[in-house]
Amino acid sequence: MLSQEDNELLTRVGPGTPMGELLRRFWMPALMAEELPGPDCDPVRVRLLGEDLLAFRDTSGRLGLVAQGCAHRLASLYFGRNEEDGIRCVYHGWKFDVKGRCVDMPTEPSDSNFKDKVRIKAYTLREAGGIMWAYMGPQDSIPELPRMPIVEAAEGHRFAIKRFQESNFLQAIEGGIDSAHTRYLHTTLDFYHRTESYLASLKPLLDRFKQDPDSLDPDELDQIFRTADKAPRITATRTDYGLAVGARTSVEGMSYWRFNQFMLPFYTMPPRDPGGHAFVPIDDKSCWVFTFRVRTDRPFSMSEIRTMRTGQTDGRFGAPVDENYFPLAHSGNDFTLDRKLQREYNFTGIIGTGNQDMAVQVSMGTIVDRTQEHLGVIDVGIIEMRRLLLDLVKDMQAGKAPLAATNPEVFDGVRGVSLMRSNDVTYETCVGEVLQRIDQTKQKLQQLRVQEAAVH
Amino acid sequence: MLSQEDNELLTRVGPGTPMGELLRRFWMPALMAEELPGPDCDPVRVRLLGEDLLAFRDTSGRLGLVAQGCAHRLASLYFGRNEEDGIRCVYHGWKFDVKGRCVDMPTEPSDSNFKDKVRIKAYTLREAGGIMWAYMGPQDSIPELPRMPIVEAAEGHRFAIKRFQESNFLQAIEGGIDSAHTRYLHTTLDFYHRTESYLASLKPLLDRFKQDPDSLDPDELDQIFRTADKAPRITATRTDYGLAVGARTSVEGMSYWRFNQFMLPFYTMPPRDPGGHAFVPIDDKSCWVFTFRVRTDRPFSMSEIRTMRTGQTDGRFGAPVDENYFPLAHSGNDFTLDRKLQREYNFTGIIGTGNQDMAVQVSMGTIVDRTQEHLGVIDVGIIEMRRLLLDLVKDMQAGKAPLAATNPEVFDGVRGVSLMRSNDVTYETCVGEVLQRIDQTKQKLQQLRVQEAAVH
Amino acid sequence: MLSQEDNELLTRVGPGTPMGELLRRFWMPALMAEELPGPDCDPVRVRLLGEDLLAFRDTSGRLGLVAQGCAHRLASLYFGRNEEDGIRCVYHGWKFDVKGRCVDMPTEPSDSNFKDKVRIKAYTLREAGGIMWAYMGPQDSIPELPRMPIVEAAEGHRFAIKRFQESNFLQAIEGGIDSAHTRYLHTTLDFYHRTESYLASLKPLLDRFKQDPDSLDPDELDQIFRTADKAPRITATRTDYGLAVGARTSVEGMSYWRFNQFMLPFYTMPPRDPGGHAFVPIDDKSCWVFTFRVRTDRPFSMSEIRTMRTGQTDGRFGAPVDENYFPLAHSGNDFTLDRKLQREYNFTGIIGTGNQDMAVQVSMGTIVDRTQEHLGVIDVGIIEMRRLLLDLVKDMQAGKAPLAATNPEVFDGVRGVSLMRSNDVTYETCVGEVLQRIDQTKQKLQQLRVQEAAVH
Repeated sequence: MLSQEDNELLTRVGPGTPMGELLRRFWMPALMAEELPGPDCDPVRVRLLGEDLLAFRDTSGRLGLVAQGCAHRLASLYFGRNEEDGIRCVYHGWKFDVKGRCVDMPTEPSDSNFKDKVRIKAYTLREAGGIMWAYMGPQDSIPELPRMPIVEAAEGHRFAIKRFQESNFLQAIEGGIDSAHTRYLHTTLDFYHRTESYLASLKPLLDRFKQDPDSLDPDELDQIFRTADKAPRITATRTDYGLAVGARTSVEGMSYWRFNQFMLPFYTMPPRDPGGHAFVPIDDKSCWVFTFRVRTDRPFSMSEIRTMRTGQTDGRFGAPVDENYFPLAHSGNDFTLDRKLQREYNFTGIIGTGNQDMAVQVSMGTIVDRTQEHLGVIDVGIIEMRRLLLDLVKDMQAGKAPLAATNPEVFDGVRGVSLMRSNDVTYETCVGEVLQRIDQTKQKLQQLRVQEAAVH
Repeated sequence: MLSQEDNELLTRVGPGTPMGELLRRFWMPALMAEELPGPDCDPVRVRLLGEDLLAFRDTSGRLGLVAQGCAHRLASLYFGRNEEDGIRCVYHGWKFDVKGRCVDMPTEPSDSNFKDKVRIKAYTLREAGGIMWAYMGPQDSIPELPRMPIVEAAEGHRFAIKRFQESNFLQAIEGGIDSAHTRYLHTTLDFYHRTESYLASLKPLLDRFKQDPDSLDPDELDQIFRTADKAPRITATRTDYGLAVGARTSVEGMSYWRFNQFMLPFYTMPPRDPGGHAFVPIDDKSCWVFTFRVRTDRPFSMSEIRTMRTGQTDGRFGAPVDENYFPLAHSGNDFTLDRKLQREYNFTGIIGTGNQDMAVQVSMGTIVDRTQEHLGVIDVGIIEMRRLLLDLVKDMQAGKAPLAATNPEVFDGVRGVSLMRSNDVTYETCVGEVLQRIDQTKQKLQQLRVQEAAVH
Repeated sequence: MLSQEDNELLTRVGPGTPMGELLRRFWMPALMAEELPGPDCDPVRVRLLGEDLLAFRDTSGRLGLVAQGCAHRLASLYFGRNEEDGIRCVYHGWKFDVKGRCVDMPTEPSDSNFKDKVRIKAYTLREAGGIMWAYMGPQDSIPELPRMPIVEAAEGHRFAIKRFQESNFLQAIEGGIDSAHTRYLHTTLDFYHRTESYLASLKPLLDRFKQDPDSLDPDELDQIFRTADKAPRITATRTDYGLAVGARTSVEGMSYWRFNQFMLPFYTMPPRDPGGHAFVPIDDKSCWVFTFRVRTDRPFSMSEIRTMRTGQTDGRFGAPVDENYFPLAHSGNDFTLDRKLQREYNFTGIIGTGNQDMAVQVSMGTIVDRTQEHLGVIDVGIIEMRRLLLDLVKDMQAGKAPLAATNPEVFDGVRGVSLMRSNDVTYETCVGEVLQRIDQTKQKLQQLRVQEAAVH
């Protein structure tokens, strides 16, 4: 439960709002790289943090993210001509480069210097990991991109997709942090109703993990413990990158710890692969949900990519989108709710994990009225995430920018982690191990970078 | 004409509004019984008095009308599973019974008593007369259902249907009270233009009624007097159930009195059959128009039911609806206005009395600006209805609940009445006779109930 | 650039707003004459200056423009019966004539005089030039219609059409005044990229004009100078009818002067034919764009009329509309923007000058935020138009009505004018010549009227 004031503080993102100012200090996934495929391609309308912008790639391949309205009389540059290193307004031919500078003003006398005084708002746009990243903070000191797997992975080893969501971004983050809901929202009735005898049949598997706790396959274990223990105990620890959120479930004297990472300002990374989600505010009422997949062992196969790309409903994404990245399931068709399916096959009657997430998150209202909530022990991660963001928002209001925004290395090596430990191992021990692992991964990655740099 | 303040007072129905509080003291038709056909059937979203609710029937057949948002984090229970005597949220499996009690909270440790502290808002829903009735007032003292024919009639002897209307409920009530408009809105040109010579031809019929005034067939008389006298004089008398609204028309020394009943808080019953209408606020901007038909002499025939059900346009209802009870005629298609038909066939160029009512009532604006009206002698019923409701609203604001809400027997025996009397019989005599008849009917019904109770 | 206050002052047109009051002093094109084709035809809903009105033609052919809501209980008279010299409400048969007087009130006793006290708002509607003109100012002193060619031209010699535009009217006027944008918005790439060598090839033509400056064909010259000089210098002079806006472009020692006329309160007339545009506010958010064509030499041919009527995209209008005068190109389909066409054929990738105008004008936002503009030398006409309207609005607030509204002869003889003069001829000389020509035309027209009156 939040006060109305704190709910407003956390969910409003327009220019001048405290949360808006905080988010503007971070790089944000803004659009897919494929939306700006080459020099002088069609410009793209981008709405981000309540601002109407235009993204384009100029003749030299430079990326621009500028105000949509021409400086002259505000005709939309979307209708403009992307040509010869700039976007030219079709109304009177004024032309702007990727920095927002007016580089041609044919309507003025040739000896006029009016052009040099005219600018449009311009932000920085950068391509990495199949994503176009926007930096909407102060343009005189642009930080480095965050060191996340999606940013650093080689082509072929990464995949990204986005979908539009008709709700505020915060409730989408909350869904991403919440480890418990998979037991319900994303389950089939078959799994949901599995009994003690089913668990008994899993004993050999469990014994294997007891002998070699670190040989675990998170997905396999997740299914066992999801079935066996429906009330995970959640604890969360603040870190430099955000929060380590540990969910503990216990069976037969053993605890399965699942550490989901919340990375500032709106990323989550589960212990599955070093991908995860970004929940990027379009405005107060809608957001983009980006999904990242990264695999380091080998490139994705064509068939894996096709499955992920089409958002096939039996795959993990499960929210097929149209050519504008709008989901085919939406509030207008009850997210394809099928009551027969709900009675006979799965918990929701909706196919696709993404569609299931959207159905509940959007159904909470455009902005959840958090004064009406009743949070339980499973919501500790959500509570801690809100506290962290509130603290940072208040720091920001006091003029103190978030450290993580300017220190991309805090994200280096962060991974979701699963642990299998006997019940007497404490949370503190476990989270310590998680943070140690992250540190080890970070050192390994930094060594690799040094070696690579030496080769070149 | 009303002041803007009184217009607001009478038309706003959300939680906390004075009229909203008044209406919450009465049972209200909320949905059709057929919408919740059996145990564990699909839950139904219900918006009533500006509140978003969920109606469902549990495994034991009990009816629930609860808040749509789960107590946990407000995901809509509409997406929930209706199973094992409760509705279970698909997000985290919290489950609520028809009383709004949380009966399962699988995400909490088994020794937690958090569940017992959590409730969602729950109102009372009851089935009677093919209708689901909601009581949204204080749940610690639920009155009995109003003793109206639709509630008391045996199956087969009653029929109910509803349609959505894109306007505030009050102007819909006003249409139901207004006896005069049938002469215009619902007439064909043939009738409208009937002349003196036509009236002369009706003299034998009139003579019959003079000899036996109480042998009248309201429909037959209505047509005669509607043609003969286009300016009925209206008088209204307050009663314990609401208002008796008498409309007097005179031909050849005889007066035809038509008493239309207004029953609190939003019912009308014309002197045709003991059915009538209920105008139930969905919110400030829309309402459900329920139409009831009851016949005591025999059950409705299959063909009568089919006619009423399909809202056939030559029948009385005349507002066919789709599977969601939304009229096929609506503001988007000018209520099927056909100008050729209007020139050649009927007054409006719209087929169907329901469609005709909707066309004018919706065209007045979502909420009529009653500061701009010019009311005449035919509007006395409307004026008195507003005064009555304003008095009750003000009583309610002063903490005094409406008597009719907790005294269901005030509605017992109320019927629309037609009288044929010589011109020198006064209104007072006539209304006295109407109230006497109601009293007689009430006594007869109460005797029947005693007899019936004795048999069982 | 305007202050927010002045922007509000210039763009808000509802009842009681200063600009609304100013506009109400002028006759305004309200609908097409063809929309009210004959006695007792279907009434037409008209929204003008934020008021919902009904236009109709009664049995005697008189025109009415009245409030849409019936005086009784505000049912829309649109559903009414247009019959026997009045519009009759279908709810209770109240009937109103074109003056808004209640002429029948069948629901009241025959001796009642209530009818005589009841009126609905009525404005004056008059047909001229294929247009229905509305006067919404004080109805006790109706001025004469403005003496414009479209009003005065004989049938066959004039043509009018209208289209809906999803923006405030002021930015539409600004587009009409702005002579510079044709070089960009309405150009093909072929013309846009024409080079010095092309200009050289035009030298013979230019020489001809030097010898006989007044033998010019504006369209021909416009194309030459549009290509040769992309930065016209604009000057504007206040007149009794509005503004003479001169645009000067220079090539080879010669100046081409193009005087576009702004006529109060929202007309423009370019130097092409004595037609032009009217930009009529529907409300703050939308307007009607009327286009007039007049030719005095001969009647329009059938084929010219067909071309203009269908808004053929290679013609001047270039904004085909549906049967309700709604453009087929609109914001929902990006005004038919075609990027391939934009790369290969014309400046915008949109076919049709009207569609091109709409695309940029609507894209500026429903009401342009003029506090964000950067105006240049080409915008002097726009700046002066705003100043003129602001002065008149402030006069109006001080109780001083605009002179042009009550003096229709100020528009008499006003024409767009093109001049070809050597570079040393000043603006003052040119505008003097323009005003002298207008005066000559005015005298000629007045003589013709005297002669015509003498014949009759």
